[in-house]
Amino acid sequence: MFFASDNGGPVHPQIMARLAQANEGHAMPYGKDAIMDEVRDAIRTAFEAPDAAVYLVSTGTAANALALACYTQPWQTIFCSTTSHINEDECNAPEFYAGAAKLTVIDTEDKMTPAALRRAIEKHPDGNVHGAQRGPVSITQVTERGAVHTLDEIRALAAVAKEYGLPVHLDGARFANAMVTLACTPAQMTWKAGIDVVSFGGTKNGCMAVEAVVFFDPKKAWEFELRRKRGAHLFSKHRYLSAQMAGYMQDDLYKTMAQQANANAAHLAAGLRKAGATFLHQPDANMIFASWPRRIHQALHDAGARYYIWDGSLEGDDPEEYIAARLVCDWSIGKTAIDQFLSHF
Amino acid sequence: MFFASDNGGPVHPQIMARLAQANEGHAMPYGKDAIMDEVRDAIRTAFEAPDAAVYLVSTGTAANALALACYTQPWQTIFCSTTSHINEDECNAPEFYAGAAKLTVIDTEDKMTPAALRRAIEKHPDGNVHGAQRGPVSITQVTERGAVHTLDEIRALAAVAKEYGLPVHLDGARFANAMVTLACTPAQMTWKAGIDVVSFGGTKNGCMAVEAVVFFDPKKAWEFELRRKRGAHLFSKHRYLSAQMAGYMQDDLYKTMAQQANANAAHLAAGLRKAGATFLHQPDANMIFASWPRRIHQALHDAGARYYIWDGSLEGDDPEEYIAARLVCDWSIGKTAIDQFLSHF
Amino acid sequence: MFFASDNGGPVHPQIMARLAQANEGHAMPYGKDAIMDEVRDAIRTAFEAPDAAVYLVSTGTAANALALACYTQPWQTIFCSTTSHINEDECNAPEFYAGAAKLTVIDTEDKMTPAALRRAIEKHPDGNVHGAQRGPVSITQVTERGAVHTLDEIRALAAVAKEYGLPVHLDGARFANAMVTLACTPAQMTWKAGIDVVSFGGTKNGCMAVEAVVFFDPKKAWEFELRRKRGAHLFSKHRYLSAQMAGYMQDDLYKTMAQQANANAAHLAAGLRKAGATFLHQPDANMIFASWPRRIHQALHDAGARYYIWDGSLEGDDPEEYIAARLVCDWSIGKTAIDQFLSHF
Amino acid sequence: MFFASDNGGPVHPQIMARLAQANEGHAMPYGKDAIMDEVRDAIRTAFEAPDAAVYLVSTGTAANALALACYTQPWQTIFCSTTSHINEDECNAPEFYAGAAKLTVIDTEDKMTPAALRRAIEKHPDGNVHGAQRGPVSITQVTERGAVHTLDEIRALAAVAKEYGLPVHLDGARFANAMVTLACTPAQMTWKAGIDVVSFGGTKNGCMAVEAVVFFDPKKAWEFELRRKRGAHLFSKHRYLSAQMAGYMQDDLYKTMAQQANANAAHLAAGLRKAGATFLHQPDANMIFASWPRRIHQALHDAGARYYIWDGSLEGDDPEEYIAARLVCDWSIGKTAIDQFLSHF
Repeated sequence: MFFASDNGGPVHPQIMARLAQANEGHAMPYGKDAIMDEVRDAIRTAFEAPDAAVYLVSTGTAANALALACYTQPWQTIFCSTTSHINEDECNAPEFYAGAAKLTVIDTEDKMTPAALRRAIEKHPDGNVHGAQRGPVSITQVTERGAVHTLDEIRALAAVAKEYGLPVHLDGARFANAMVTLACTPAQMTWKAGIDVVSFGGTKNGCMAVEAVVFFDPKKAWEFELRRKRGAHLFSKHRYLSAQMAGYMQDDLYKTMAQQANANAAHLAAGLRKAGATFLHQPDANMIFASWPRRIHQALHDAGARYYIWDGSLEGDDPEEYIAARLVCDWSIGKTAIDQFLSHF
Repeated sequence: MFFASDNGGPVHPQIMARLAQANEGHAMPYGKDAIMDEVRDAIRTAFEAPDAAVYLVSTGTAANALALACYTQPWQTIFCSTTSHINEDECNAPEFYAGAAKLTVIDTEDKMTPAALRRAIEKHPDGNVHGAQRGPVSITQVTERGAVHTLDEIRALAAVAKEYGLPVHLDGARFANAMVTLACTPAQMTWKAGIDVVSFGGTKNGCMAVEAVVFFDPKKAWEFELRRKRGAHLFSKHRYLSAQMAGYMQDDLYKTMAQQANANAAHLAAGLRKAGATFLHQPDANMIFASWPRRIHQALHDAGARYYIWDGSLEGDDPEEYIAARLVCDWSIGKTAIDQFLSHF
Repeated sequence: MFFASDNGGPVHPQIMARLAQANEGHAMPYGKDAIMDEVRDAIRTAFEAPDAAVYLVSTGTAANALALACYTQPWQTIFCSTTSHINEDECNAPEFYAGAAKLTVIDTEDKMTPAALRRAIEKHPDGNVHGAQRGPVSITQVTERGAVHTLDEIRALAAVAKEYGLPVHLDGARFANAMVTLACTPAQMTWKAGIDVVSFGGTKNGCMAVEAVVFFDPKKAWEFELRRKRGAHLFSKHRYLSAQMAGYMQDDLYKTMAQQANANAAHLAAGLRKAGATFLHQPDANMIFASWPRRIHQALHDAGARYYIWDGSLEGDDPEEYIAARLVCDWSIGKTAIDQFLSHF
Repeated sequence: MFFASDNGGPVHPQIMARLAQANEGHAMPYGKDAIMDEVRDAIRTAFEAPDAAVYLVSTGTAANALALACYTQPWQTIFCSTTSHINEDECNAPEFYAGAAKLTVIDTEDKMTPAALRRAIEKHPDGNVHGAQRGPVSITQVTERGAVHTLDEIRALAAVAKEYGLPVHLDGARFANAMVTLACTPAQMTWKAGIDVVSFGGTKNGCMAVEAVVFFDPKKAWEFELRRKRGAHLFSKHRYLSAQMAGYMQDDLYKTMAQQANANAAHLAAGLRKAGATFLHQPDANMIFASWPRRIHQALHDAGARYYIWDGSLEGDDPEEYIAARLVCDWSIGKTAIDQFLSHF
């Protein structure tokens, strides 16, 4: 009954098998391994982007911060939503990697709206040396509140950015989960919608520690390589990053695991809804924000369930008081565990 | 016949087994996994340092840059040797992590001498606001030219640093290889010799991608955690870093592998010596810098041997001309491969 | 009829005289000049702070960014209002000087409220490594919309900060103008109200280019000196900064000029009010935000009046449409110019 | 008898007069003042560079650090001499402004040699992601040891840089002093010799606090403006920077003052030579490094002479022991003071 995060689950056996298989003899370090060639091809194929520059790093924060840094000057500001991971959960890594650039948070409910984005951009008039200059727009898909932008929504945000000549980054830590929800292709959710660079997440979706950064225009390739090395994110034994990603792409495992994770969440959400829980946000993919009485929380906790309390209201002790919880399902959680969880309602 | 680097070899089966074993069920992320407790204990025990703060990262550059950043103000300079990894091979990562601090390279032959270190420190007089201020001293053990500092040499360098109140960092990417050469304990080579913080390498010595940073005084612990997160080096699925290090420490595997690597290098060096190769540096651990005629190089290359040419003189084509080579042995290279290599001389 | 900014006016003759007087013979550079001793004494006396560390720089942005950097770690966030100069008008200088720290903007109407500040601080829970850590609170006095915080308001904001152990900075680019409005002493508006460090502005109030940074606790003194030098803000011919500040403090010239500036603004505001202009903000000191028909704007413009249009609505051409304007009065604007300006209404 | 530095002398009356003249009425801030137009024209004319981008800042360190930052990526290294001001006297400002780039010091005697520069560049092979990448070359003219590069020497260094496609910066804090020595034009010493950007010093040569940064290719103009603002170096009351530079350029005052300073140094050097002092460096412009017995030093000191001891050997008390001194002459030192100084030998 582990719902604390999708980063708490195990690595898929297919990926473990690729790691074991990669572990034979010697290999050239620093990304010159043969498996990386396979990975590059697989990702270019999946994204229908034969010229894309493809790189691997080991954390989602590294993927985001390095990708954004390639498109941000130190005197610019990155436009993002208040709830974005880059704003709330990266301890100033984007600012650090972008040379002390700023983040402009767009204070709408979770998802940015095109109108709010436009207003934020307009507040930074071109040619005004006094304020931060306009920088890239970063969209989080799935959002940190569990919502999935429709393709239209992504296109509309990207269109505003393009109108001002600004590049667009997609934080896809849960890329596959969103794809499954939208029943779309990687290309549709990225370059066909106006995305310039994507953090294509693996870690949260059944890998060990690997994320791809995919640039649809390869002109930033060498700069990325230098930034990755300077950030201490270039793996010497790179074949083990490659092997994870190779296993992840093989036979569309990334989709399969995302389908499982989303199905798990749907099953859990259905049960919670039936049990009368209140939903704080619409659960579009594999994350659920919901609320129930403290006494149920206590029972769940005693039974070993793990999830985050979302509003810090645990100081009270009224058993009828409601607590809010965040639940995230990974691919590996079985229906049994979910039903066991629901049995406490 | 892979001698290009010790980062080209496979992961030891004992470590792979620990990874497989760790891959069961769910675990708390971000270093709260139970295996990390085991690792912390094992490292504290090995270093005879019950209060040490112990952290894991995935690259040696991250270990060095983060460890040094905790002891460096942006207006200071880090004292290191010209040949140090932090100077030559980290693409400004130490400067980046230390907020744009400087490196003062001490231009002696490979190892710093205490006298040269003192001169360099004295060139930065205390209280002179115009120049870079004195910062930490960083010692590389094994050096990037394959030399091992004796315990006396480390003590002497640390003593100079301490005289000026400066902290001392040990870049131990090949820590175990040096230990084996010196037949000493981890404590003797670190805090007992005056080291404040050590990058304790795993990756080059049979791990997949893991280095420990060990602070003998834990007062920098929280700062390190923040710097690690900000640098995008905090692993969510941390148990897989922990598992590697747990396997590495278990039954002193780190020593066993270093013994194998050093023995391999000794066997190779003996053969090369016998074959008349000239040595550029004394091979103290698992690295060899030697020189032989181009025609032998060509034969080795054709037979599939892999190593770095050290002086870039390959443009010529005189078969009697000498080339210089760097050869590094990891734990996994068998005597057969070495003897096959030597057979070309 | 120059109302574009208080940085458009001339330097007061008393300050010019001090500059001329300072220009005799040779003087020790870098702040070791004798006039700086006089300045230090004068500011300590004015602020009733005999131990204060006092430094001079040449721009307000430098004063703010350097002062804040001394109290901000790179992984922290500075709490400020949306309309603060450090957020809107310093092109990421605070982030740059604070090593890529973040600014958390508190989106209230101009002035921060204690409740909003508390909410913003609480959103960054102590000990959460994922988010930006709590850093200093920065209050702008006079605000960039012309409002003056009462002493009670400053005390209340500082009290919230202190409750969380956070330092408090006052951006006093228009310090003297606020003092005059409040009829208070420098000490009352700073350390007696809970301020730890103040940017005490000179440039906008009749100096040429000088701001003092005053630390009430001198423990940051040496760090400031290093940061100032590293930021390229240490003047070699420092006596000319000192002379400006000496002239500014002499016979309370800073108060006299602020009184004149505020009186000018009051006269202008009264006239505008009489003429039926609408006020966007309450003009507490020497800044006015008001609105009137475009045809009046056109007449003023044609007559040579200079001020900033505040809302960018100039694209239209309906003479009855209203435009919003920002007007700032410096000490030197005479009643004649103001009356001439008003005559166009 | 002030020889401590050329930054200890007074501002020339012609410049003070321009400041007084500029101090009338209101002026547009931030470089939009009319005097700046005059300055831009004057500098473009003097440098025979009609398209040059011209900016003013208030310190030499700001000029150097901002100019270099426009040509340096954070992962690059700046090639400079050990004795350069950017290496020894700017407390990591160049590293700070260049986003944590490195300085590679070329350890020749004071001036870089083309051969040593080439070796240093070659040590950073193109396309090697591990080391710092090649960045700009910075030449100091006059050097910090008082030497003047000949035009041939500058051309030869710039030619090496160009061969590798690297930009070249000239730190001309004492630009006019060098020009006078070489009897050349500004253009000959800069773009005609291969310089891309120059810090054209005013402060040390009779101004109050002003340096021009001149880009011969204006494509970096907007980036410089943003970096200057972000560095807190954009003056609001910019007309007072402009007025200084206008006075400095008017009737070639910059040459006149440099001639006076160099003539003063020549007179002093001749006297010292006659008196038997030993010269540590050849005094090419207005700086002298020489050595004499401690008893003479004591007598000079007692008589009020001010200069820096160069080797820190003052702990001894043997009156026959030699001390080394640095003496710098500014434009204002009269022959009387020099002769008075020499009378102690």
